[in-house]
Amino acid sequence: MSRDWQQLLYSTIPLSVAMQVGVIDHPDGRAELTAPLAPNVNDKGTGFGGSLATLATLAGWIEVRRQLDLLSLDEAAEIVIQHGNTEYLHPVTADFTALVEPVDAAELARFGKLFARRGMARLGVRVQLLCHAQCCAVFHGEYVASSV
Amino acid sequence: MSRDWQQLLYSTIPLSVAMQVGVIDHPDGRAELTAPLAPNVNDKGTGFGGSLATLATLAGWIEVRRQLDLLSLDEAAEIVIQHGNTEYLHPVTADFTALVEPVDAAELARFGKLFARRGMARLGVRVQLLCHAQCCAVFHGEYVASSV
Repeated sequence: MSRDWQQLLYSTIPLSVAMQVGVIDHPDGRAELTAPLAPNVNDKGTGFGGSLATLATLAGWIEVRRQLDLLSLDEAAEIVIQHGNTEYLHPVTADFTALVEPVDAAELARFGKLFARRGMARLGVRVQLLCHAQCCAVFHGEYVASSV
Repeated sequence: MSRDWQQLLYSTIPLSVAMQVGVIDHPDGRAELTAPLAPNVNDKGTGFGGSLATLATLAGWIEVRRQLDLLSLDEAAEIVIQHGNTEYLHPVTADFTALVEPVDAAELARFGKLFARRGMARLGVRVQLLCHAQCCAVFHGEYVASSV
């Protein structure tokens, strides 16, 4: 199953509309989220930390949803974030994107097995915030997926 | 010096407008930030994790600015977030607020001394995300203040 991520975000999360989040579908299936600087700027004229953390939170959430789909698991599973951690490395001076790192295969196998057995499992996702091909922040999120 | 925090946020950070952030000034001087649920909702009808982390990021930023003002330090100092960490404890089911915990006095003294000497110092701030008087998430942010 393939999803229209932007439509999903825009129809359920108003902040994604305010941030003008866009989606680039990668050939390997990952969704890279884009955000223009203007609606996501701070008092210093650079990317606002809250916008960076939020874009990464969305990218991680989409990745967990996508992995559930790939494993042909519960299409209606609820995915909630349990923990989010952002390290800010460099100022973001232009439009930026959030790209998840490929999830570790062993970790993913464990996630799929646990979810299939218990209808609930936790997955950790790392996300890079990129601007002009430089990694300006790193996010790590832990998400819990559960059957409703 | 006393500042109009909402005016400061709205004039510099567009996302604070989209989130409809409000400010409650506490008698002890702390600013509690408010956010209505509607523009900050997620796909589950509860408070979106990105909005919670963002409101806390703003609350921490304001607290560092306020402490610099209280210490009569650089009015134009730049404050940037270096690290943000959010633990999500309970779903947010209604309008919510972000309230900084009082900063440790020893930590604050160290911050003021370092800033006065070097024009740069780091301050850690803890923020509670509250809904119906329940703490639904805890944020810890580290901010760097520097003279420009």
